[in-house]
Amino acid sequence: MSELPHRPLRHSDLADLDHRDPLAPFRRRFQLPKGVIYLDGNSLGPLPTAVPERLSRVIEEEWGRSLIRGWNDHDWIGLPLRVGEKIGRLIGAESGEVVVTDSTSVNLFKLLAAALKARPGRSTVLVEEDGFPTDTYMVQGLLDLVGGHRLRRAPAEKLAEALDDDVAVMLVGHVHYRSGALRDLHGLTAAAHHHGALALWDLAHSAGAVPMELAACRVDLAVGCGYKFLNGGPGAPAFLYVARRLQDELTQPLSGWLGHADPFAFEADYRPAPGIARHLCGTPPILSMAALDTACDLLLEADLEALRAKSLELGGIFQRLVEERCAGLGLELAGPADPRQRGSQISLRHPHGYAVVRALVERGVIPDFRGPDVIRCGLAPLYLRYADLGAAVDHLRQALEEEPWRRPELQTRQGVP
Amino acid sequence: MSELPHRPLRHSDLADLDHRDPLAPFRRRFQLPKGVIYLDGNSLGPLPTAVPERLSRVIEEEWGRSLIRGWNDHDWIGLPLRVGEKIGRLIGAESGEVVVTDSTSVNLFKLLAAALKARPGRSTVLVEEDGFPTDTYMVQGLLDLVGGHRLRRAPAEKLAEALDDDVAVMLVGHVHYRSGALRDLHGLTAAAHHHGALALWDLAHSAGAVPMELAACRVDLAVGCGYKFLNGGPGAPAFLYVARRLQDELTQPLSGWLGHADPFAFEADYRPAPGIARHLCGTPPILSMAALDTACDLLLEADLEALRAKSLELGGIFQRLVEERCAGLGLELAGPADPRQRGSQISLRHPHGYAVVRALVERGVIPDFRGPDVIRCGLAPLYLRYADLGAAVDHLRQALEEEPWRRPELQTRQGVP
Repeated sequence: MSELPHRPLRHSDLADLDHRDPLAPFRRRFQLPKGVIYLDGNSLGPLPTAVPERLSRVIEEEWGRSLIRGWNDHDWIGLPLRVGEKIGRLIGAESGEVVVTDSTSVNLFKLLAAALKARPGRSTVLVEEDGFPTDTYMVQGLLDLVGGHRLRRAPAEKLAEALDDDVAVMLVGHVHYRSGALRDLHGLTAAAHHHGALALWDLAHSAGAVPMELAACRVDLAVGCGYKFLNGGPGAPAFLYVARRLQDELTQPLSGWLGHADPFAFEADYRPAPGIARHLCGTPPILSMAALDTACDLLLEADLEALRAKSLELGGIFQRLVEERCAGLGLELAGPADPRQRGSQISLRHPHGYAVVRALVERGVIPDFRGPDVIRCGLAPLYLRYADLGAAVDHLRQALEEEPWRRPELQTRQGVP
Repeated sequence: MSELPHRPLRHSDLADLDHRDPLAPFRRRFQLPKGVIYLDGNSLGPLPTAVPERLSRVIEEEWGRSLIRGWNDHDWIGLPLRVGEKIGRLIGAESGEVVVTDSTSVNLFKLLAAALKARPGRSTVLVEEDGFPTDTYMVQGLLDLVGGHRLRRAPAEKLAEALDDDVAVMLVGHVHYRSGALRDLHGLTAAAHHHGALALWDLAHSAGAVPMELAACRVDLAVGCGYKFLNGGPGAPAFLYVARRLQDELTQPLSGWLGHADPFAFEADYRPAPGIARHLCGTPPILSMAALDTACDLLLEADLEALRAKSLELGGIFQRLVEERCAGLGLELAGPADPRQRGSQISLRHPHGYAVVRALVERGVIPDFRGPDVIRCGLAPLYLRYADLGAAVDHLRQALEEEPWRRPELQTRQGVP
């Protein structure tokens, strides 16, 4: 943390921090709408300025002019592995351990099924209680299909205890989607291995914001999302990681043509490709994947350790500003008090959290709401300024003072909260 | 078929047909590169002129300015069902029977698994022998996962005979990918029902080109592809159809959050949404889906029966031109001789088919190759002119006369054939 005065922070303190911020130039690489303070990059990253041009080229030149030849001439066919390599560098994977394909949920299904098959005789899937819902839903769908297995849930702090020799695979979110709590990648992976279980991590809320060393931590399997901190655009394809030492052993059941050893031989029977490519399934959505590719290039220009350093500072300052400016207004910190134990987000509780979020959005401050009462603020260091935090917390104070929960139109839930 | 002279066809005959073609104005709605005759719209449809503007709007205005609010403000969240409704009109489904999601392969997995669960006690999945490989691969992946079932293959003409009371589901391609043979949607569905089996159709090579009445034929389940005759762009999302009468009964195992009855309640357990929405899984790729949406609008402007009439005429004339202009050059028709028994494509066999296709591509005529020896020509009536067929067949004759298989550089297989 920087040296900051002990008196309440002023605008000039924050402006100073922005002035000294080595990541400040990155903000111009995003098209951020005027008058908006965006605290939801952990849900949908903003538009990198390089994306419109790339997409225009992919659409008009590659699709429009090359037509079917684009698969070779512009190496569309190689995109899942090429973008996978880039994401691999962001998460500490080795070359050939990551591929971009399908959605996070579909990739979870593949890796869960592969894990059960690789651990015959074990019948338990261990998940974090109150983890990201779709993770558990995918386990439920798989277990209902295959039969003979059971789901075990344990609170995050009891996961290590809940491991035993019947656990085939443990599935944990690296950063908890609601509280922002950062889980112990190395320790929990080692605990799973101690019991002969595989460790499957959901990196949706950490990849691109929290440095990590998947290979060094001997993580077995992981999935993650392209549209949050990776800024790949709405519904960008997801990624999937399999440690090289497991790649020959693991097969997954969504055995589509693109994961075949020879996809264009049109053979009668499925033969899995060697390496990570066997986790491909159908034809990848090239437009969405090209946007993610360009967004990853931008992230790779930044130093991940500098990103994390700023993220910690943003988290600490946001917390301090809330204490200094919103005391007595009913807010409570949700999740760890130490920024180092959080991902790149901070969550606040308020009994009328939903109406407060709606009132903030009216003011141009965009966090999101997670039930029952959480105001979730993403702190993306690539484009968020320290001064933005001051302005956001001022809006938060004003919004709370106006008691927006008395306005009936802010009670009605919209489709996407 | 039009009245055509009995003498060999001339350019003026073809130009006359183009002049009278009611679909001719649609050609201008595509960005087709100059000097190219595109016979591969059954593999990747060309770029509709309205797509670049739509995508630019989705990227810069919707993603760029609305950010996370795009899910509500631009109804991204509704796209899978809205585009599904459009495709439903193209395939004779009723409202609420189609959703756009994932890839064709992933959708096959969902529906195959749902079908097995809906037919307990039956242990056979019947597929067309030599059908589209990924269809069979997906069956293999599923059966390997669930155990206790078997794959039965039968030639298309023996499928009805191969049905028995152990068949849970029969999976057939509506149009055979290589030969173009059109299967009997109504008859085979009825045959499956006679044995209590479900009929699952792969419409990848027919949707958007062959009119069909899924609901009237009482088809149970279907999947199809967004990037072939629907022109949705490279790797466009796929679609999935479930007859309304089966929707409450069927559940699928890729139980992701978007198929949940209340996706934003973040409940601890999965509850399938009512209706077709339960077949959604993860977050949809909005950029790719928006392109497909715009492409479907274009197709919906055309009269599907007029489309089929022109497709039949294109097929008959192409065949006749090959007979008239390429006799004795080693070509042989693959698939049915009657255009009415084909989809919107025609396939020719040649011992050196691969080199011939490469030589055609050099000349700006783009069909594709399917092993071992098939030159596959898509005949998309929305943008193909009769005069294009004359020019294409002239190139074919010239290419054959040059014996391109003597050129070593045309022997080497490229990544995507």
